[in-house]
Amino acid sequence: MPYFDSASAAPLHPVARQALQASLDEGWADPARLYREGRRARLLLDAAREAAAEAVGCRADELVFTPSGTHAVHTGVAGVLAGRRRIGGHLVVSAVEHSSVLHAAEVHEAHGGTVTEVPVDRTGAVTAAGYREAVGASTALACLQSANHEVGTVQPVAEVAEVCAEAGVPLLVDAAQSLGWGPVEGAWSVLAASAHKWGGPPGVGLLAVRKGVRFSPQGPTDERESGRSPGFANLPAIVAAAASLRAVLAEADAEAARLRILVDRIRRRVVRLVPDVEVVGDPDRRLPHLVTFSCLYVDGEILLHELDRAGFSVNSGSSCTSSTLTPSHVLRAMGVLSEGNVRVSLPPGTSAEEVNAFLEVLPGAVAGVRDRLGVAAPEPAAPEADEVEVDALGLRCPQPVIELARAIGRVPVGGTVTVLSDDEVARLDIPAWCSMRGHVYLGEAPVPGGVAYRVRRTV
Amino acid sequence: MPYFDSASAAPLHPVARQALQASLDEGWADPARLYREGRRARLLLDAAREAAAEAVGCRADELVFTPSGTHAVHTGVAGVLAGRRRIGGHLVVSAVEHSSVLHAAEVHEAHGGTVTEVPVDRTGAVTAAGYREAVGASTALACLQSANHEVGTVQPVAEVAEVCAEAGVPLLVDAAQSLGWGPVEGAWSVLAASAHKWGGPPGVGLLAVRKGVRFSPQGPTDERESGRSPGFANLPAIVAAAASLRAVLAEADAEAARLRILVDRIRRRVVRLVPDVEVVGDPDRRLPHLVTFSCLYVDGEILLHELDRAGFSVNSGSSCTSSTLTPSHVLRAMGVLSEGNVRVSLPPGTSAEEVNAFLEVLPGAVAGVRDRLGVAAPEPAAPEADEVEVDALGLRCPQPVIELARAIGRVPVGGTVTVLSDDEVARLDIPAWCSMRGHVYLGEAPVPGGVAYRVRRTV
Repeated sequence: MPYFDSASAAPLHPVARQALQASLDEGWADPARLYREGRRARLLLDAAREAAAEAVGCRADELVFTPSGTHAVHTGVAGVLAGRRRIGGHLVVSAVEHSSVLHAAEVHEAHGGTVTEVPVDRTGAVTAAGYREAVGASTALACLQSANHEVGTVQPVAEVAEVCAEAGVPLLVDAAQSLGWGPVEGAWSVLAASAHKWGGPPGVGLLAVRKGVRFSPQGPTDERESGRSPGFANLPAIVAAAASLRAVLAEADAEAARLRILVDRIRRRVVRLVPDVEVVGDPDRRLPHLVTFSCLYVDGEILLHELDRAGFSVNSGSSCTSSTLTPSHVLRAMGVLSEGNVRVSLPPGTSAEEVNAFLEVLPGAVAGVRDRLGVAAPEPAAPEADEVEVDALGLRCPQPVIELARAIGRVPVGGTVTVLSDDEVARLDIPAWCSMRGHVYLGEAPVPGGVAYRVRRTV
Repeated sequence: MPYFDSASAAPLHPVARQALQASLDEGWADPARLYREGRRARLLLDAAREAAAEAVGCRADELVFTPSGTHAVHTGVAGVLAGRRRIGGHLVVSAVEHSSVLHAAEVHEAHGGTVTEVPVDRTGAVTAAGYREAVGASTALACLQSANHEVGTVQPVAEVAEVCAEAGVPLLVDAAQSLGWGPVEGAWSVLAASAHKWGGPPGVGLLAVRKGVRFSPQGPTDERESGRSPGFANLPAIVAAAASLRAVLAEADAEAARLRILVDRIRRRVVRLVPDVEVVGDPDRRLPHLVTFSCLYVDGEILLHELDRAGFSVNSGSSCTSSTLTPSHVLRAMGVLSEGNVRVSLPPGTSAEEVNAFLEVLPGAVAGVRDRLGVAAPEPAAPEADEVEVDALGLRCPQPVIELARAIGRVPVGGTVTVLSDDEVARLDIPAWCSMRGHVYLGEAPVPGGVAYRVRRTV
């Protein structure tokens, strides 16, 4: 049963399991104690820190363990913002950061700070120029992920780090998605990562703060982890995290090359096998194991259920999935289609057969969802009028776009369709549909109870 | 090799180990996901929450898992203080709380809040009257441990909870030391605990917040754990924590009765076997497995090393141990001797033979330390003058008290010895020595470079 969501969590690496077992026996005591069990725990903790620091590319005394990648990000952002409070209260983030960074930015704003979001292009990438424009004399911190967690696009961290260094602004890199594939290049100042993304156990994050970066930990602290991460250390998990990081990095280049070929196959074949699909993210500058595509006229949650029934575990950034009513902020920032969104992230060891099986199942699954939504029927051919208005108020993703697709044949080339919708996702998906179909998106205007989106038929 | 520091950390309970193994296989995925691995993880998380809530005595939707007991305390204190900000900025804590509570109180004060410390008696216990006096109209929160982590004294939580309820003030109980022995009695509002204290794995704390308590989580949050504990859940450890809590509680009454007898033996025999020793903490209202005593004229760190060499792992609240230069705030608040301090906390399963072996080794270990410090030599017998001044400036614990003991024979009964010391611990240990030896402590006065402590010889 193939699990294709390693960007969310990966099963425990065999090396992590072995290390965890051993350190449950050897590393349960308090490493701050003077007796033999404590000294043994301290040795394990020190060795894990050395190994993790080597993998990250920093000094051991620059690295602390936190309870999760999220804690590492929260602690790192708050610590630098406070340490550089005198310089100013300005924070720069990319528009496609992980929610942990954006949540930290929200808290900063709520406390009177200012935040600039650096935009991305349609592949999800920022530019160094974007950061150059954003940072200023009052910028306390800039944040950039090493690679995007939803679409896999690798960010130009080294160039952005240069821009930040010129401006005297520290750069925090969220390396959660990439550290298992190799160290982050460039002169970053602060780095955060999460062990369960590389096959380590949950409960362990890394926070590295380069010497010389002004850092003032916030909230209550204690004597643990250089005063940067309070609470009893989760030592067995830390030992397992460090051991598995070393193990996955030793295999990373070979496994990346292998998975890159499998992902390229998905990227290439999905557009041939499934009509009306958009593969998003940079095709080349990307994580080796991750690909995301969106399917027109498809409810993401139903598609996930269909794929799950067929034995494939994948994720989705569609607004119509699970608890959220807004589409993924990443897809929104990229300006790409969000409906019927599927993220495939292959864990190490994924076989070509598993990928082929997925590609065999996918077209039928998408077609099945479209059938159920009634979009398989041909669009009406005969234009009725130059202007048509479609009332999609109260309908949820992907229905407004389906209504638009049904209506476009009712106007001649040059005619206009107006869709009334109160679904947040229409703002993203109607322009995306126009760009996929070659029609012109004319813009939006408020109407009672929603928004009017206007589209000119051009083909 | 007996390990007698279960109040710091306990080896993993066999049930915890089993549960951890099983949930490493079944519970590694993200419980927020819709696919089968995610649903399986969600079932495990829900079941662990039910089990933990039952053990705590609360509803499952009142309980969240945190990365440690320290995080549970920090989150609980900050959440209630913020939720009740309109009522006022006054926080009440006992003087003998765990450092995590006191650190949270320090942060509260640094942000403009006020803190009242409720004093304790010589056994380390607060009184309900002490809390009645401390809480007022502007009190946002009161905190009280269920039992003290250094001396084992059980606090009158139910009575204090009543006082707080009458005053309309929520009571946060730090149950870290006692939850493995049974649920906390009384109408507490918020409860924090730590799994590795009951034989669960590190990396798991509990935070229970009763419905109706105004609670506003601080700092960045996410959709995890009701928005109260951000970051990917440490699910295998959570499952193990809940399973072992259930297991230890099933054995708790029988094991408590057994260990209580062993601790009583230590309490009784230590004072017979070791000269100049003070057993501290309440002899009856106490944790079943924990006893603390202090030895005059003993360097706590050296004693710990001696006991470690003899195969016994114990802890100490002495100032002369490890990194700290101030004595334990608990012993200080109790006003008892801190030098040569030893805390023995027996893990479940400790045998009578192990305790007997400890009692056999202890007198020689203490005598050996005293020999090395030169206090085994008889005190000079002949009084020289009515007043003697001893310059102990620059000397560290336990030397100032040793100098005092040497000097007391140099004055007649009724005469006065003045000790000059710049060691913080002298302020605690000189009065404690007087009370143990039946002399009168006359008080302190500042002198250049330190403090003059005056003692009248009465026996």
